[in-house]
Amino acid sequence: MSTQAPDPDFRAMLRTAIDEARAGLAEGGIPIGAALYRADGTLLGRGRNRRVQDDDPSVHGETDAFRKAGRQRSYRDTIMVTTLSPCWYCSGLVRQFGIGTVVMGESVNFSGGHEWLRANGVRVVDLADPECISMMGDWISANPLLWNEDIGVD
Amino acid sequence: MSTQAPDPDFRAMLRTAIDEARAGLAEGGIPIGAALYRADGTLLGRGRNRRVQDDDPSVHGETDAFRKAGRQRSYRDTIMVTTLSPCWYCSGLVRQFGIGTVVMGESVNFSGGHEWLRANGVRVVDLADPECISMMGDWISANPLLWNEDIGVD
Repeated sequence: MSTQAPDPDFRAMLRTAIDEARAGLAEGGIPIGAALYRADGTLLGRGRNRRVQDDDPSVHGETDAFRKAGRQRSYRDTIMVTTLSPCWYCSGLVRQFGIGTVVMGESVNFSGGHEWLRANGVRVVDLADPECISMMGDWISANPLLWNEDIGVD
Repeated sequence: MSTQAPDPDFRAMLRTAIDEARAGLAEGGIPIGAALYRADGTLLGRGRNRRVQDDDPSVHGETDAFRKAGRQRSYRDTIMVTTLSPCWYCSGLVRQFGIGTVVMGESVNFSGGHEWLRANGVRVVDLADPECISMMGDWISANPLLWNEDIGVD
């Protein structure tokens, strides 16, 4: 008999992040979305990359969801759900605040710091979601310069 | 004959970050300030931790200075000046965007990801500034719970 709670519905949580990414795409932005949940399924915050919309390079999907969640005393039992493997900036956020779990839609089009997070005790789940893979792949193909700007490639 | 340009005045740049930290302290906030400069001495953006002032956990000194600098096509020749060793969140920012140099006021009261940045090719200068050390040390002693919240310690 296991004392471990069953996993929450990661695919349902990813739906929230995808909806954010699609909203960003409709705004002319970079289609990456994220959501921060409690392990019990409570949504704390959701957000999306808004480099283009707000002309703000600091708003990645994950940092936006983290901000929207407001101040939390502990992140140990929280889950950061994101449509794409978190970049170093967002991976650093996860590590510093002790977010326990990262669920990512895909890591085909970009691979950030998720292996580093794993090595540092974060549970990382890669859903390899076909919708995330095609959405991001199509967008990068059409917007290579903007994509390179967003990930700091000269 | 060296072809290398002389270092800019790191201590003068640190003054900007200290001024930001002191402004935050006067507002009742966490006294960490930062500034992003070009290597030629141009100030791109300055900012400070505003967890308390804005009730926003995503605004660290470095992320605020980065945001204030607006969108930049390349960060290779930029210098992130901060009063304190950058946490993992802010170190991840530096690594992802390829910020070439980090100048920190001190790493006595907190040591974040600066050695990791060094290992990944970032130039890191520790000024071991007595004003930064005493400002932060005094504040942490007086505000341990708020400090732990800011660095994600349960």
